Amino acid sequence: MKKKAIVLLSGGLDSATTLALARDQGYEVYALSFDYGQRHRIELAKAGQVAKYFQVKEHLIVKVDLERFGASALTSDIPVPKDRPVKAIGNSIPVTYVPARNTVFLSMALAWAEALGAKDIFIGANAIDYSGYPDCRPEFFRAFESMANLATKAGVEGQARYRIHTPFIEMTKGEIIRQGITLKVDYSLTHSCYDPSPEGRPCGHCDSCILRRKGFKEIGAHDPLEYM
Amino acid sequence: MKKKAIVLLSGGLDSATTLALARDQGYEVYALSFDYGQRHRIELAKAGQVAKYFQVKEHLIVKVDLERFGASALTSDIPVPKDRPVKAIGNSIPVTYVPARNTVFLSMALAWAEALGAKDIFIGANAIDYSGYPDCRPEFFRAFESMANLATKAGVEGQARYRIHTPFIEMTKGEIIRQGITLKVDYSLTHSCYDPSPEGRPCGHCDSCILRRKGFKEIGAHDPLEYM
Repeated sequence: MKKKAIVLLSGGLDSATTLALARDQGYEVYALSFDYGQRHRIELAKAGQVAKYFQVKEHLIVKVDLERFGASALTSDIPVPKDRPVKAIGNSIPVTYVPARNTVFLSMALAWAEALGAKDIFIGANAIDYSGYPDCRPEFFRAFESMANLATKAGVEGQARYRIHTPFIEMTKGEIIRQGITLKVDYSLTHSCYDPSPEGRPCGHCDSCILRRKGFKEIGAHDPLEYM
Repeated sequence: MKKKAIVLLSGGLDSATTLALARDQGYEVYALSFDYGQRHRIELAKAGQVAKYFQVKEHLIVKVDLERFGASALTSDIPVPKDRPVKAIGNSIPVTYVPARNTVFLSMALAWAEALGAKDIFIGANAIDYSGYPDCRPEFFRAFESMANLATKAGVEGQARYRIHTPFIEMTKGEIIRQGITLKVDYSLTHSCYDPSPEGRPCGHCDSCILRRKGFKEIGAHDPLEYM
């Protein structure tokens, strides 16, 4: 029987590539996406397409009311910063940071993992070409993993330990895309933009678009998305 | 200015007493409750009454889709165990355990805390007269606290650290009630039962009712609830 894995799937480039990798490593994939009041909800439709493309075992889109807490440009009407220089991105925590988002998402993944009997959780976090979010740092994921093993039956009953897999944590965006191409990820199905048009066309100017475009350029690959 | 605290408020005896204590300690209280598909949703109405009684600054009831994952008697049609001997309660993990529930709830509390600028999170967990849930143990809360301080801006920007307060973790149910009585908690507003009647009347026979009744009996106090 195949080992089960939960893969957090935002519909972005990193999470789609992570899903492809987990599948390539032989896991039976359960993809988990969140409707959390994000202004780029279009990513959920994209996540569905990616899940279908890779024939995951199950794909859940779960509602989590993070917009009730506000305080982020991604879940409120605070404007998304545009055209910041690449060097500035990641140097400080931007207004697109959603408080404790990865903690909440991984907690939900842990809940599903425990219910399913899965021990492996994959997240496509990246701490190189990233937006400077505290919950994308390697030390955070290690701390979450320790906590997860105390939070659950596994910690009491001496079952196998949970593992939080962050395969791309130390890669550049270009390296992630190169790996994705070998894994046959269809990047036309992915969505990275924080502030897309109503039809879902990426702006090309937010931090996320800038990092994505830089990644494709870095390895001389073609980004199939059409920008505004 | 008063320090802000998030208090997880289920509407049960422990969380109502925790709220009273946080308020008594001088915190401005933000109460957080969850609609997670629990069969005893009546507790949310009770949580609202408790929040109002103690005039909290704000009370949010947030939807978290834990019932999508199943695997618990509290969120599915698995029967709730009845009339278990007190000695058996807490010895093993029962079917009322909801996978990773406290991890998810505390993560949401952390999200709200970070958005509000609060550093203190109170949870009325108890590891003495409890149901044997792994996520009620002191070592879990310590691990969550460490993780929280890496997950958030505080960990990057050197701000004050988050604290997870578990004031009743080592108390018996009777001791908690005694403290609540001195803090003027109105226990007629609280709800403990896992399997109430449609009108919200407690069954008197689930683990939670048994522990509650034992607590009142232990200190010779009157439980104002009318059982089925």
